[in-house]
Amino acid sequence: MSEMLPPGGTIGILGGGQLGRMLSVAASRLGLKVHIYADGPDSPAGQFAAETVIGAYDDEAKIAEFAKGVDVITCEFENVSAGALDAAAKGARVAPPARAFAITQDRLLEKQFVEELGIPVAPFVAVDTADDLRKAVEKLGTPALLKTRRFGYDGKGQVVVRKVNDAEAAMEEIGGQPAILEGFVKFDREVSVVVARALDGTLGFYDVAENHHQDGILSSSRIPANITGNCTYKAREIAGKIASALEHVGVLCVEMFHCEGDADELVVNEIAPRVHNSGHWTIDGCQASQFENHIRAIAGWPLGPTGRHSDAVMTNLIGHDVDRWPKLAADERVALHLYGKAETRPGRKMGHFTKISPKSS
Amino acid sequence: MSEMLPPGGTIGILGGGQLGRMLSVAASRLGLKVHIYADGPDSPAGQFAAETVIGAYDDEAKIAEFAKGVDVITCEFENVSAGALDAAAKGARVAPPARAFAITQDRLLEKQFVEELGIPVAPFVAVDTADDLRKAVEKLGTPALLKTRRFGYDGKGQVVVRKVNDAEAAMEEIGGQPAILEGFVKFDREVSVVVARALDGTLGFYDVAENHHQDGILSSSRIPANITGNCTYKAREIAGKIASALEHVGVLCVEMFHCEGDADELVVNEIAPRVHNSGHWTIDGCQASQFENHIRAIAGWPLGPTGRHSDAVMTNLIGHDVDRWPKLAADERVALHLYGKAETRPGRKMGHFTKISPKSS
Repeated sequence: MSEMLPPGGTIGILGGGQLGRMLSVAASRLGLKVHIYADGPDSPAGQFAAETVIGAYDDEAKIAEFAKGVDVITCEFENVSAGALDAAAKGARVAPPARAFAITQDRLLEKQFVEELGIPVAPFVAVDTADDLRKAVEKLGTPALLKTRRFGYDGKGQVVVRKVNDAEAAMEEIGGQPAILEGFVKFDREVSVVVARALDGTLGFYDVAENHHQDGILSSSRIPANITGNCTYKAREIAGKIASALEHVGVLCVEMFHCEGDADELVVNEIAPRVHNSGHWTIDGCQASQFENHIRAIAGWPLGPTGRHSDAVMTNLIGHDVDRWPKLAADERVALHLYGKAETRPGRKMGHFTKISPKSS
Repeated sequence: MSEMLPPGGTIGILGGGQLGRMLSVAASRLGLKVHIYADGPDSPAGQFAAETVIGAYDDEAKIAEFAKGVDVITCEFENVSAGALDAAAKGARVAPPARAFAITQDRLLEKQFVEELGIPVAPFVAVDTADDLRKAVEKLGTPALLKTRRFGYDGKGQVVVRKVNDAEAAMEEIGGQPAILEGFVKFDREVSVVVARALDGTLGFYDVAENHHQDGILSSSRIPANITGNCTYKAREIAGKIASALEHVGVLCVEMFHCEGDADELVVNEIAPRVHNSGHWTIDGCQASQFENHIRAIAGWPLGPTGRHSDAVMTNLIGHDVDRWPKLAADERVALHLYGKAETRPGRKMGHFTKISPKSS
């Protein structure tokens, strides 16, 4: 424990969004300070931090300078460049490690990495050209999903391919970027596991969330998921294996498909090397939230308890959903969380709310 | 509810300590911004706020200027001057109301106020001179407590009077300030009730805490208190009566003595017109903490639920108690809260920790 960052130490966060905001608030509990690096003024995270530096996420000189003022640097989004992380590392310890970002920000590398661990993923083929795509469609059948290798999130950079002849159009739609084609998985529910991995490798697992998406964006999470105990065990095992193999430090989320049928088969869909929307319920349902455990892990502290004290249903407020805030504020069953974003835009995550109820089992 | 401060609005807090810090963090959940007015740099609250103004608490011009930049102004301590509150009111709505401070910052006014509500207080006599004190001692008997009318907290400004002949020395010890002499109450436990009062007068009660003091400073709180259901009802009724009579807006705490014997007799000891140390457990034991409900109330929002989801024991980290932080951070039963104070001093509240357990009843 000689590497524990003592109270009074400073965490630097690249990213000024709601994840940075909730990380900052979690750091406040532990007596740590927070500096935010954001790409604009009045960011959700910058509103609750000791200092904010405004700069582009590819301004390596500015990031290196920012890092000099902090002890540990972390990131609220996965699409941080290797150059930015290198720049950050000149001034402070960086966690999670660069490798965790390198692998998870590229769908092809991510899938290969998971497959090599012996963990099931959806069938996939690398696709760089329309010709590749045609061959891939012949191999995987239709419908199939064409996804850019990089910069995809919340359903962006994805297109459904329904027949071989769609290949040209599909490649055009994703801007001809390097991609993968993914075969469809027949699943009856989507689940996710948020796992925290401490600097010494200790793992802490939150309960499995069952997630519902709308238009490719997470809409709600229910905890515990309606899956068997055996399946919960398997889901956590998969998440732990991935976190350990990445030598991850901090919180990581693995989204999985629970396949149709009674076999409790799980297929990994995506890894996020950070705190995750499907873990927001932990603020209200657990003693130590995913945000606190991310801060603990990157600060070299032992993990806090991940057990839940209550069942929870978390619902996102997307775009003008947030206009419901007066009604939600008056609903005694609701723990409301608003992110301090000045402008409401369609598809933008503006807040969430959690309903907790006595722990079921 | 037309007076609800909408998300994006700004709360101004006079005071930069741990209460301001936890209020600020609570405001972050509701999408509100926070500006802190503190008397020094790097304050616990200023570390987690959008802006900090540094100034003296009696600099009325500066406070008036500060108030112009916020929508609602509140206070984390009770000893704010009437002048400062008037200055604040020039720029923003002030909550709690000035009257709540005026009464509770003067022990004589406070006791008279409570007594007039028909609520029992310890027997008391106003004392301005050694001669007054001698007469008061003769009336109330010994031992008795001499307390300055103003600026007393955490056992400061108090002296035990054991015999009439101590009068001169006792008056000298409290600097000859206006004071009261208080008769001793035979009590078997100290309890407190944190109550929130919304702008529309709605009351929300937290569970009664049972408090232990050491050297005049709160050491720990246990929730629920070991008192009867009837006594819980009475305690809440008293707190509600006081909050309503003060036309309070925000959170208020009433400390009471539970008298020896089986009569469930309660005697009011002190009122704090603010969030209170004996309510810190609500962060970890309730859906909406005392800090969130203070922000909700002053912002004109409906109150959040005050019910507890877990039992709790809160323990203060005073002075060098905080050096235990590495051990506490590793204790899975503990929710640790550190206040970001750079300097550890004897008697200074540096943090607290809460142990929660499944709700008992």
